[in-house]
Parts: sequence; structure tokens; C-alpha cells
Amino acid sequence: MRISFDEAQKTLARTLVKHGCGQDQAQKVALEMARNSLEGGYTHGINRFARLVRNMDEGIVIPGVSPVKMAGFGAIENYDGGMGMGVTNAWFCMARAIELARMHGLGLIALRNTNHWMRAATYGYQACEAGMAGICFTNTIPNMPAWGASDSRMGNNPLVFAFPRKAGPVVVDMAMSQFSYGALEVARLAGKEMPIDAGFDSRGRLTRDPGEVLASQRILPTGYWKGAALSLALDLFAGCMSLGNTVSQVGRLPGDEHGVSQVFMAIDFNRIAPAEQAEQTAQNAIDDLLGSTPAQAGTRIVYPGERMMEIRRENLEKGIPVDDTVWRQILELD
Amino acid sequence: MRISFDEAQKTLARTLVKHGCGQDQAQKVALEMARNSLEGGYTHGINRFARLVRNMDEGIVIPGVSPVKMAGFGAIENYDGGMGMGVTNAWFCMARAIELARMHGLGLIALRNTNHWMRAATYGYQACEAGMAGICFTNTIPNMPAWGASDSRMGNNPLVFAFPRKAGPVVVDMAMSQFSYGALEVARLAGKEMPIDAGFDSRGRLTRDPGEVLASQRILPTGYWKGAALSLALDLFAGCMSLGNTVSQVGRLPGDEHGVSQVFMAIDFNRIAPAEQAEQTAQNAIDDLLGSTPAQAGTRIVYPGERMMEIRRENLEKGIPVDDTVWRQILELD
Repeated sequence: MRISFDEAQKTLARTLVKHGCGQDQAQKVALEMARNSLEGGYTHGINRFARLVRNMDEGIVIPGVSPVKMAGFGAIENYDGGMGMGVTNAWFCMARAIELARMHGLGLIALRNTNHWMRAATYGYQACEAGMAGICFTNTIPNMPAWGASDSRMGNNPLVFAFPRKAGPVVVDMAMSQFSYGALEVARLAGKEMPIDAGFDSRGRLTRDPGEVLASQRILPTGYWKGAALSLALDLFAGCMSLGNTVSQVGRLPGDEHGVSQVFMAIDFNRIAPAEQAEQTAQNAIDDLLGSTPAQAGTRIVYPGERMMEIRRENLEKGIPVDDTVWRQILELD
Repeated sequence: MRISFDEAQKTLARTLVKHGCGQDQAQKVALEMARNSLEGGYTHGINRFARLVRNMDEGIVIPGVSPVKMAGFGAIENYDGGMGMGVTNAWFCMARAIELARMHGLGLIALRNTNHWMRAATYGYQACEAGMAGICFTNTIPNMPAWGASDSRMGNNPLVFAFPRKAGPVVVDMAMSQFSYGALEVARLAGKEMPIDAGFDSRGRLTRDPGEVLASQRILPTGYWKGAALSLALDLFAGCMSLGNTVSQVGRLPGDEHGVSQVFMAIDFNRIAPAEQAEQTAQNAIDDLLGSTPAQAGTRIVYPGERMMEIRRENLEKGIPVDDTVWRQILELD
């Protein structure tokens, strides 16, 4: 079925209010989760909503809480998220990073004791809407083995680099695993192989077979040893700058993932590189890239963020595709 | 053969002076390039020295030049590198980012018209020595295809995340290609396969055969589409913030790679997260990771930066391993 963006927002917001959110927070979280689905980030949109409500009911995500400042010096600040809603906590922190960047050229916020921010790209787009470049990342529960290890002690710690353009921002949103467990599960049920190595089988050989990876639980870091290394660095930045939980500590908290640590940076680079010149430089770079020769006839080269705008256009017009069962479950929470 | 760290530095410095460097700059560049080899970064140390001298002789790397400030606002500044020596230009900019971070909590420098900085990790360690976290990246000539493309229009744009610890910094230094062309060439000559996919063959299939990849020139972005996406973001950050050359523009400059753009960030996070607590948090995270179960008996799990310290110790004691021919060529430049 397809649900209009407007109906999706209203339904989610109403449900959040029934489960303890104030009106403003409910509308913001509903907007962002509906928008995630609208823009093709289905796994972190409507499909994840019932889990968020369950987390609220369990008391591990606490509505009505805002981040509290713990320390600050110039353009860097440290907040405690009080186990509040991940979306509004993260939005608050990127907004504060943007404010600091207006004053200092750039700003950095470290946030501890927060919850899943849903789609990482959201906060990159937030910086871009303010005309700024953004970098942000989060840690997660342990869900990926260190390079050379068989047990999962690293997070897949999504990382965002976002660059604003009037013609459409370039937003890279990458988890440190090559595929999510969700994507492997979908492929396994469909009886499909992954297009590239997805992890290791139980004998330690790289494999594209999702069932083998789900059995071994040895999912592949993106870039093999490189993504594993970057995952650790992101965890240290987030955990140590916020004095919050690192991946291993998040893993020891009982119940569903909560209490993660995040970092948000905004860069008001137009103060040193005037917007018009920067825009032209970016346009030239992207034009050159899109002029690449496709390896296969009939395909085209896109930049990160381009496909999102197309999906958004289509889903605004036709409605957001939603699984019937998922939507029924949400209506039952209402 | 093995050359002592001291002899390597003295020889390189003397040669640089003969080719137009002042004493101070010669000693700094010689120190860093000898240190790269000392610490296992062989491709960006002594092995690359003859090429640097050739670039100086050709006039595309200009000794005696320092970055000149073009614009600044608070904690962000923009410099023109005047096509100077990449190592001293980059060192200058990270040093300035560190100064800005002392004042503002963090600092960012964008640098244009600079040259190859040799080992990317150098400037991450520089931030760590000042007790700060560092992020830096550079663009390069086009040397990697966009995802889905057959011609090379992206750079492999190395990225560094560095986190300081008294017990040894954690430094991730990753190019956006999975392997360098140099590594493929070495494997091809040795008749070896790469351990994982290294690129595409001429029919567009993923392959571990280095010869096939060298023939197709379709090297693999690290993380497949993810590294390709991140490569573009880094190019836009560096090129647009510095108003310098993007990858495509670097590719159009005649001769060997020159005139690249870079970004340097330093974060004085101990202002918001006291050193002792941050150090303990990092130690716990790393201890947990190193407690992973190795997938193969007899192997061990390391953190990024750990192996470097071991190689450094060995090469300090025994001397730096240097290819006879490479060293003879350097002595001929002297």
C-alpha cells in the first residue's frame, strides 16, 4: 500500500502522543521518521516505528527529555542526552553545532546517553539546510567482528559527510558494515546471493551467501580492515569526547540498544570560501564525475544524494510504499 | 640493506639542500620521510624520495614556500600553499589547526595549491602529540572510477582519523581505493593474487587478479560504492573549502600530480572531556576489542597504530630496510 506523507506524519505523531510524547516532540519525530521513508530510508522510517514505541513503553527511550550541557569551551560542547528520543536529541545537537559554527566558523557537539537517531543522513541534511557542511557519527551495540576476529565487539557506527549545494546536497551516509543484518535477512528469505562479499562463512572464508553470514555472525566491515579500523576511531571519538558509552559499554546495557554516544560537527565554510565560488567548484567536480563512462550500457552514474531526491519526488506524488502488516501494527499502537 | 634512521635523515636532508631547500625545510622533510620508512610507511618514505627530488627539479614542487593565509573567521582559515613542499605545507596547516583549537576548542584549515603530503597519518600523529584528536584528508589525481564507471575520475583521497592516548594513539589512515596501483604491481610481479577483490576485469567482473585490474584500470573503491561516495565528499570538502583544485582539476594539470587540496582539523577535546577520564574510556574500549576471539588460531587482534609502534621499534634497533637500488639512486642525487 501507499500512504501519503501527510497521513504518515499525522498517524505517527498521534501514536507518539498516546505513548507519552508532548505535541512538539511527537510532530518532530513523526516528521523525520515519515521523511526517512519518503526519501527511501525505509529501514529507519515507518518500518522502525513500532520498535521505537516499544522502546518508549519499555522505558529505555524517555520522551520529554532534552540534552543538558555538561561542559563547553569555545566551539566545542558536551551534552548528556538523558536517554531521550534519539531523533530530537540529535537534531538539537546538530542545531547547536550550527549555532556554534555561526559564531566560530565551526562547531562540535559530543552527546552521550542518547538513543538511535534513525537515519544518519538526517543530520547531514540539517547542516546543509543551514548552508553548512556537516560531519556526524554515532556508535552502536557491538554487531561486527574486529578484523581477524570471530566474535562481534565493534559497532557498525554510521558516519555522515554532508556538503551543501543549491543544486542538491551531496550526503554520504555509511555504516561501517558492508551490509546490515536486515539486508542479509531479506536476501536470504528471497533466496538471493549478495552482489559482493557480505561476510565470512563458518570456516572463515569470504562469502556472498547471506545465510552463511547469518549463521557465522561474521558480517563484513566495509573496506574489510579499513572499515573495522574506522569503526574503532569513530567509537573512541564519540565515547571519549562525550564521556559516554563506547560500543562495548552499550553492549552491556540490558535490553534493546540504548545509551549510545554521538558527535556532530557543522562547518560554516562560506566564511572562508564564498558561496558562489564554492558552488561553482562543486558543480564542476560533480559534472566531471557524472560525465564518467558507465561500465555497463544503459546504466548511469549518480552522486550520493541524487537518488534520494528522485525517490522523494516519486513518493510525494504516489505516496510512501508501506508494508500492509507494518502499517496495521502501527494502527494497533494508536 | 638497512640504513639507520639517523643516516637516512642526514642523507635525505643533504640531498634536499643540494636541490634548493633551505636547511630547516630540508631537515623537516628528511625527518618525516625517513620516519615514514622507519614506521613502516615505506611507499611514502625513502622509496618516494627520488620522485620528490625530480618534482623539485621539474619546478612543480617549489622549495622555500610557506602557506599564505587567504581568509579566516574564528576557528576556520583558508591558505594557499603556493605549490610548496607537501610535507612542510601540511605540517604548517595542522600546527595552525592545533593553535586555533587551543583558542576555540577546535580548528579547521583548508589548504589549496599544495603537493603530496607523503604519509597521511603523519598529520594525525601531529595532532595526537599535541594531545588532540585530528581529522585530515587530501584529494589526488583521478585514479579510481566512480561506482559503475569504467574510466577513472575520482581520487583515492586518503582520510585520517587520529585519537590521542598516552598508551599509544589510534590512527586510521585510509585511502579510498582498496589497494594502491603500487600494491597491485608488486603482487603481479610476484605472481600472487590479492587476498580479496581488488577491482574489475575487462569484462566488468570483480577479480582478485592484480594483472586483470592493472589491465582494466578499474581499481576497487574501498567498501565498493561506499568508498566511492566518501571519495567525492572528501574532494568537495577539500576543493570547495580551499577554493582550490578538485580531483578533476588536479588531473588536468600537466606533469606529475601537483596542486592538490587538503583539510586539517584538530579537536582539543580535553576541554570538555578531562584527559584522565577520556584515556580510561579509550583504554576500556581497546581492551575490550583486543579481547576478541581470533578467527584463526595463532593470530592476534591489533588496533590501528599498534603495528606501527612495533615496526618502529624494530627498525630503530636494526635500521630501516631499504632497497639497494633505491638507496643508490638517492646517493646519485646527492
